[in-house]
Amino acid sequence: MSILIKNTTIVTQDSERRIINGDLLIRDSRINEIGNDIDEKADEIIDGNRKIAIPGLINTHTHIAMALLRGYGEGLPLHEWLEKKIWPAEAKLTSGDVRWGSLLGMIESIRSGVTAINEMYIYHVGETGKAAEEIGLRVILPRAMFDLIPGRKLETELREAAVFINNWKGRSELVKPIVSCHAPYTCSEELLLKAKEMANKEKLKFHMHLSETRKEVFDILNSKGKYPFEYMDSIGLVDEDSIFAHASWVTKREIALVGKKRATISHCPTSNLKLATGGICPIIEYDSAGANVTIGTDSAASNNSLNMFESMKLAALLQKHHYWKADVAPAQKLFDFATINGAKGLGINAGSIEKGKLADIVLLERGPNMVPEHNIIANIIYAAGPQNVSDVIINGKIVMRDKKILTVDEEKVKEEAEKAAKDLVSRAS
Amino acid sequence: MSILIKNTTIVTQDSERRIINGDLLIRDSRINEIGNDIDEKADEIIDGNRKIAIPGLINTHTHIAMALLRGYGEGLPLHEWLEKKIWPAEAKLTSGDVRWGSLLGMIESIRSGVTAINEMYIYHVGETGKAAEEIGLRVILPRAMFDLIPGRKLETELREAAVFINNWKGRSELVKPIVSCHAPYTCSEELLLKAKEMANKEKLKFHMHLSETRKEVFDILNSKGKYPFEYMDSIGLVDEDSIFAHASWVTKREIALVGKKRATISHCPTSNLKLATGGICPIIEYDSAGANVTIGTDSAASNNSLNMFESMKLAALLQKHHYWKADVAPAQKLFDFATINGAKGLGINAGSIEKGKLADIVLLERGPNMVPEHNIIANIIYAAGPQNVSDVIINGKIVMRDKKILTVDEEKVKEEAEKAAKDLVSRAS
Repeated sequence: MSILIKNTTIVTQDSERRIINGDLLIRDSRINEIGNDIDEKADEIIDGNRKIAIPGLINTHTHIAMALLRGYGEGLPLHEWLEKKIWPAEAKLTSGDVRWGSLLGMIESIRSGVTAINEMYIYHVGETGKAAEEIGLRVILPRAMFDLIPGRKLETELREAAVFINNWKGRSELVKPIVSCHAPYTCSEELLLKAKEMANKEKLKFHMHLSETRKEVFDILNSKGKYPFEYMDSIGLVDEDSIFAHASWVTKREIALVGKKRATISHCPTSNLKLATGGICPIIEYDSAGANVTIGTDSAASNNSLNMFESMKLAALLQKHHYWKADVAPAQKLFDFATINGAKGLGINAGSIEKGKLADIVLLERGPNMVPEHNIIANIIYAAGPQNVSDVIINGKIVMRDKKILTVDEEKVKEEAEKAAKDLVSRAS
Repeated sequence: MSILIKNTTIVTQDSERRIINGDLLIRDSRINEIGNDIDEKADEIIDGNRKIAIPGLINTHTHIAMALLRGYGEGLPLHEWLEKKIWPAEAKLTSGDVRWGSLLGMIESIRSGVTAINEMYIYHVGETGKAAEEIGLRVILPRAMFDLIPGRKLETELREAAVFINNWKGRSELVKPIVSCHAPYTCSEELLLKAKEMANKEKLKFHMHLSETRKEVFDILNSKGKYPFEYMDSIGLVDEDSIFAHASWVTKREIALVGKKRATISHCPTSNLKLATGGICPIIEYDSAGANVTIGTDSAASNNSLNMFESMKLAALLQKHHYWKADVAPAQKLFDFATINGAKGLGINAGSIEKGKLADIVLLERGPNMVPEHNIIANIIYAAGPQNVSDVIINGKIVMRDKKILTVDEEKVKEEAEKAAKDLVSRAS
């Protein structure tokens, strides 16, 4: 299988950040050649004229099946929302719900230029994996764990995670397992230690929420005598194979620590604002310190979209606002976070358009919102949106062409998801 | 001319905020009937099935022709950006530049579900008016004034504004004049007084920037001994016919004053963050005090888009963040700001879908990002975007149908705007 994209603008995101005009040849799952006038009888030829090819965006923190709960319990204060709406609904989730919710969230992701997501969920995650293979989205997938919740036990969590890893390791080109613990306030120290041990043994990445709220910081400080990242480091959890979602409420000393350890931060600006957790993750300081900064949308229940263009723009705007300085968080930096850094954090051989890399590529139309082109990167970060995404290639396969999803029946997914969502909340209330 | 939209979901924004299913009949420029099974041989019939009809969004602060400078001088600190890039370019603007920049920004606006804008510009504004008539967008248009800038004189400014009003008053159903002064730091007190006098005499609205930056507040406090809104009130400028853009840096006493006078605030959240002016306009406090809160994008040079969906969402998110409270700034409130309040502030008989109102209506497709529909208003504010806008009717005329702009040649506008933008910056540098 080969795909030839002719006469396009290629934003390479290679080490020189070159923007070139030319052709792009994909063979099987890889980028085979970048050049001018590539003369090749490809199976598929895409006219890239007046389009822009970018590396697909990488969403490093989401709970994809929660697309089913978009707007549910809207307007309630945070704890009431969780306790009266989200958790009761999640307790009633069926495997069918997770299937339709996952497919719905994946279609939205693809339409937003996303080619890979880092997923975190607990319920029926096998369905999310199967949905990813069906639709053709790259997914880093855990059976996430927590043991400080009624009805959950450390041993069962670890066993189910081990079975999950065993099931998915080496099975799929698109779906790769990861080890994930929910958060310090839902996981015992023993679970955290054993989970990280499992990740190390299996050579997998490790993912958890950390320092999303002030309360969490003070609780850890009170119980452990250390700030969250210092505590996590003291038990061996902070290293270049760990991804921490949110990480908003941190001291300068913790930022230096995260940087020194080259750990990955997943900044989820929309969700942080919408849930009013109050924090602006100091991504520019993390980046300067040497941390691997990436961007996530969080779930459609707390966002309420899965639009990575929005999250990139908002992330940049918040830094400018926070530091009272218009020239911090330049567009190129944000684009790096959402492409190269995302790939690095998740251990995916993508994030740039270079020979030999995985063919995870998005074509953007130059809509009126991307004209004129004084600065193509600024147009991508500050002006582009899902309306500009025309074609999406993942792992060398065309998943969306001319704005049509090719791999699943989008209308059916929307109908089934709508029905599942209505049924779910009527069971839960 | 009549248009019948069949079997659609209508978000009325009437006094009861009803959401109903039914048909919508438009006759000439007005909404003629809302009901079930309207049996009418309309000139145009639109199948509204699975779509959502909303009142068109109203952008109460922009400089539309600056679309030509989108991304120009990106990444520079604010003053360098203005002094080295924006002002030198604006000094070279030709009428042709303003024509193509206006059409470009208007296409982007329409594609973002906008049916009316409140414009503020100084250069070749007649071209913006002609562009509005050509494309079919409702525009409140000034020849904006300033006299504290080298080469500008109070008398000339007032004379040109008077000629402009005379030219446009009663000329067009779509383009209505407004009186506008740039800002307190570019306008003398005498100009402000005479401009407001002109507005009162002509029964027109009055528009200016105010309290966008901290510096401005301190400068007025030092020179006048009063906070900006108190100073403006002392010279008679704060009333229900005045629209103040930004208004971020205010005291509680000023908020109470603006509320008591029922003045209009145009909150431009994206631009405020991007320029790092640092302020979060306390729109929830303004609203509680009785002010008429509305939403603007500001220009594509400082945003860098004209996407009102983004501005509505960001405005809500910033309030939640600012007050550490997830349930402030509910979605319905934001939708009111961008529809009913916008119409009221600008004196347009639109902003809701009710019999007798102007037919300024947008149809949204239920894309995957708007499924499921637990809360239709939350979906509009937090999940919808330009990708969902399928049809736009302004003043009873279909301007966009099935995502195609009917009134101008979009490709030609993009080409000419790109060319004009490149020429402009090469002349300016």
